[in-house]
Order: sequence, then C-alpha cells, then structure tokens
Amino acid sequence: MPNFRMLLSYDGARYQGWQRQGNTKNTIQGKLEETLSRILETPVELHGSGRTDAGAHALGQTASFRAETDLPPQAILRALRRYLPEDIGVLALEYAPPRFHARLSAVGKTYRYRVWNSERPNVLERRYLYTVPAALDLGAMERAAADLLGTHDFRSFCANPRLKKSSVRTIQALDIRRLGDEVRFTVTGDGFLYNMVRIVVGTLLEVGLRRREAGCIPEILAARSRAAAGETAPARGLCLMEVYYP
Amino acid sequence: MPNFRMLLSYDGARYQGWQRQGNTKNTIQGKLEETLSRILETPVELHGSGRTDAGAHALGQTASFRAETDLPPQAILRALRRYLPEDIGVLALEYAPPRFHARLSAVGKTYRYRVWNSERPNVLERRYLYTVPAALDLGAMERAAADLLGTHDFRSFCANPRLKKSSVRTIQALDIRRLGDEVRFTVTGDGFLYNMVRIVVGTLLEVGLRRREAGCIPEILAARSRAAAGETAPARGLCLMEVYYP
Repeated sequence: MPNFRMLLSYDGARYQGWQRQGNTKNTIQGKLEETLSRILETPVELHGSGRTDAGAHALGQTASFRAETDLPPQAILRALRRYLPEDIGVLALEYAPPRFHARLSAVGKTYRYRVWNSERPNVLERRYLYTVPAALDLGAMERAAADLLGTHDFRSFCANPRLKKSSVRTIQALDIRRLGDEVRFTVTGDGFLYNMVRIVVGTLLEVGLRRREAGCIPEILAARSRAAAGETAPARGLCLMEVYYP
Repeated sequence: MPNFRMLLSYDGARYQGWQRQGNTKNTIQGKLEETLSRILETPVELHGSGRTDAGAHALGQTASFRAETDLPPQAILRALRRYLPEDIGVLALEYAPPRFHARLSAVGKTYRYRVWNSERPNVLERRYLYTVPAALDLGAMERAAADLLGTHDFRSFCANPRLKKSSVRTIQALDIRRLGDEVRFTVTGDGFLYNMVRIVVGTLLEVGLRRREAGCIPEILAARSRAAAGETAPARGLCLMEVYYP
C-alpha cells in the first residue's frame, strides 16, 4: 500500500484546530480526511506531524497517509486543490518511504509568532497577528529567551496539567526580531508541549512589557508548574513553519 | 469649522466599495461617516480621494471632513479605533489647512496590484491576490507597459462608456516586479478612470500569457474603445497605496 507525504498550509481561523474530534467535522485533519477519502474512494487516516491549536496557522505542516490507490501523487494533488476550501492549501504531495510517518519520524519543528507592536492597525494582516501596542523591551526579551535555550523540563510552559510523559524538550533557537512595527518570534526545537510556544511568547511579552524581570526564566523552569509562567498568547499569532525529518 | 485629514487602510472584501450609495450601509465611506457622526454627535460628510471598487483594498487612502467639534484629532482617532470594525483602520488623523479637500487637492495616486503566479496556493494572503498559475512573460509585459507611460487618452481602459469628461491621464510609473511566486504591478499616475488599473493589469496579463502581442498598446489606446483592451482583473488584487498632495 503506497505511503504519501503531504506539505500543507492553512489559515486556522475557521477551524477548531488540526485534530479530528469525535463528531466535530470542523478540524483541518477532518476536512482533509473527508476530501482525500472522497477522491480515493476509500477511508483515509491522515497523520499530522502534530496538532495545531484552534485558530493557529501553518505554512509548512507535514502529514502522511497510506492508501490503496493507483492514482499518482500529481493526480491526487490536483484533485485536492480542486476540492479543498481556499483556507487549506496543499503545497506538495509525493510518495514517501514505507516507514515514513509524519508524527513519529519528525525530529524537530519551527514555529513563528507574530506580534503587531503599534497602535496603527494592520488591517490586511490582522488575522495572523497579536496586537500589543505598548512599548516592548527587545533586549530584556532576548536576555530571557537565552535562558530557554537548550534542554530543560518545560512543564511550567505546558497547558496540560495531567501530562504523564516527559516534559523535557530542547529548544535549539529562539530568535526575536523587529521588522518595522512587527516583533517576530521564531523558535525551533525537537518538539513542543501543549501550548508551549504560546506560553513562551506570552511570558517573554510580560518581560518585554517590564511586568517580569529578564532573569525570571530559571525560576519559572524550576517551579515545574504552569502557574509560574506567563499568560498564553492568542493562537492567531502562531504559525507552524516547518517540520524536520532525518 | 475645523478641517480634518485622515489616513486610512481597509480590507475591502466585505464592502461594496468606498462610496456610500443610497440606502446601502455596506460601504467604507458609509461605515466611517456613521461612526464619525456618532462620535462627534453631528452629521459628518467624508470626502475620500476617490472611490475604490467593491472588494478592493487600501493601505493609504486619504479622506477629509469638516466638523463643528472641540475634540482634538487624537481623541477622535482613539474613538474611531475603538468603534470601527477590524477591517477598517485609521492610521493617522490630523488638522488640515482650511482649503484641503481629499479629492480636489489630490495630484496623484499609487496603486499596487498583486498576482500570485503559482499553482501552489498562498492561503494566508489569498484575499489580496489574484491567482494566475500559468507562466508569465515579464519581459513582454514590461515592453507593453512602457507604451502606457506618459500622457494618453485612456478611454479604452475605462469601464464607464458614458464618460463625458476628459479621459486623458498621465501614468508616471508602471513597475512590474517578480517577488518569488508573486508578480507585483505598481502604477503611479495623476488620476485613474473607472476600473483603469484593473483593465491595465488585465491587458498586461494577456500580454504576459502571450494572448496579445507586446506591441499591442498603441493600437488599443488609439481605438478609444473599452472593447479594444483586455479583461478587467479582479478587485481582490488591487490596493490603493498612497495619495499625493502638493
């Protein structure tokens, strides 16, 4: 049974996140599975590299599926582009090695979080930005971000209090950059806990707004408690940029 | 009575264009007038630099109004930002000289038209792009564009067949640029006829697709007939970037 790998972009505003949930059809996974199953005339189970939150976006989500079909990837791709709504876009579709699995094979991810740091509204990009009009101290945020780099127990940055598995993760890079009125966070790691990027950004923004000290991170990490970290930044600013495979 | 000048951006997707029309409340001008009149507690008539089409956008529309009010511009600006929907953004508001009028004082405008030239969908910017997946000959479009520069009778590029006034206009610059998968047209002129930018872009795209010769423009201009030019490109790709004043 051929194995396929798909590169996806989506505007998450209309969806209750990536993951199909019981009866809920309004998820990205659900919409893609429904469309693929119709095209291939057989039920298809799609594996994403991971869930994205309700309202979060993707420019480089990866997913995989197996299906008993003679249709070549280019034909499936054309059909998907014809039948999917315009807020889900398939960038590429190709045969994958038999053992490839979008979630189990993934070794890392890059997320971007966009903050609009101005009182002057950005109407054309508003759906992909979280607006914070007050002044942000970039230097302080960068000093705090440095303490998040490397391998840590990120339990304080996880919204799931009942997490049984390890909450140890490695952040390889956390870049904060001003682009005109935008402040853009780009974070790369081997994996991310539930809401982790949004809690990291929310905490760094509190540092930038001088509501927390730039040196607050070691204590937050040590607490191993969600209550120690800052607020969860809204999903609309978040975008999954790339998933890495060996 | 103080005179005010306003710099505006808007996402035109939800609106029937700039201009208030009879009972129709669903125009940008109508929405702004309604909001301003409520804030200033007096009927306000707003003058835009010109109409924009239903579905077209603006990053730098200029408008002016007079109102008997003691409220300073900063207070009106804050109130507008609070009460306007998120697809209309006021970038600046200031006192204007007594004789300033956004339409009558304007001496030029710049429009941008964005074409997405790829089969790979751009979901995040889809609302502001017209997708043309087939190959475009940029050199041919540039040669055709050169013949549009300068002062001409642009009647062939005007969607209003009953235009009584002069259809002579001057195009000072028409730049066509590839930015990755995007082809971006930027056109500056002293004024534009009804649908003129969209017909210019639609005609140039036909040249780019090799459905017309690069040398077709002089004949189209000479015809002084809408039927001689190409199709009207969709409004969604169009954005008013800047209005110039002496």
